[in-house]
Amino acid sequence: MSTSLISKHDLLTHWLGHRNLTRRVIEKFPEDQLFTFHVENMRTFADLIKELLSLAVPGLEGIVHQETKPYDHDLPYNTKEALLQAWDEATPQIEKLFLQIPEERFPEDYNLFGQYNFPIIYNILYFIDNEVHHRGQGFVYLRMLGIEPPFFWDREKN
Amino acid sequence: MSTSLISKHDLLTHWLGHRNLTRRVIEKFPEDQLFTFHVENMRTFADLIKELLSLAVPGLEGIVHQETKPYDHDLPYNTKEALLQAWDEATPQIEKLFLQIPEERFPEDYNLFGQYNFPIIYNILYFIDNEVHHRGQGFVYLRMLGIEPPFFWDREKN
Repeated sequence: MSTSLISKHDLLTHWLGHRNLTRRVIEKFPEDQLFTFHVENMRTFADLIKELLSLAVPGLEGIVHQETKPYDHDLPYNTKEALLQAWDEATPQIEKLFLQIPEERFPEDYNLFGQYNFPIIYNILYFIDNEVHHRGQGFVYLRMLGIEPPFFWDREKN
Repeated sequence: MSTSLISKHDLLTHWLGHRNLTRRVIEKFPEDQLFTFHVENMRTFADLIKELLSLAVPGLEGIVHQETKPYDHDLPYNTKEALLQAWDEATPQIEKLFLQIPEERFPEDYNLFGQYNFPIIYNILYFIDNEVHHRGQGFVYLRMLGIEPPFFWDREKN
């Protein structure tokens, strides 16, 4: 038998901690800059957040219900409040769906969004890594706007 | 018994895949910009890479040998070639040290660098997350320099 490096519960807690930090980064943006500021050939931070929202819950729904719908990054959120509300509404859905995936399915291949055929654990790690990646970009945007980002290591809920 | 969500070998492979991508980002930087370009109140990408180098092998050495030396981000690499060489020399050390950590130690607390007292699995995830975070910032630097970053999902060795 192999010891579990990380439990399902702890991996979920790890992800939710990252989501707390990402929420804090959204909050730091001035409303207008959130939807307008970007580096050439990059998206606004609002668009990056919409990407994250379009992956997490829909991706988990696909995994849980074994459906393979394509994703849609073009979500109808046009204010910081709407974006934060969508973020907060996703949280309990992520918890619920994640906990419905049986541990034995994590090493099984799943064709995420009908496009990415990898073991479920890698799909989940991709959600987290992709969030960390884009949030790191949000840190740079904040610095460019003269705003100090939150602490990277702070994963507590506000 | 709990099923393992991810094996030790697969977690190592996941990290090494990230390191392949990070190496590709270093390579994309023009030599001078690697050591000079930065956003106000942020470090150069070379300095971010030195931070990563100062955490991974020294951190794993601490975990394996149960020592708690402080880290030192101020590494003596002043050329892209030296930085890439240090990156490549770290890879087999990371592999060797990581594989020396018994699976049963991953849930155990370890006081990383004498400062961060968390289960070893979280120390390892921190190394990976911190690399993804800073590499995401490197993507923005590249875009600001008019250079297209590598594909985020490409984790193959060059």
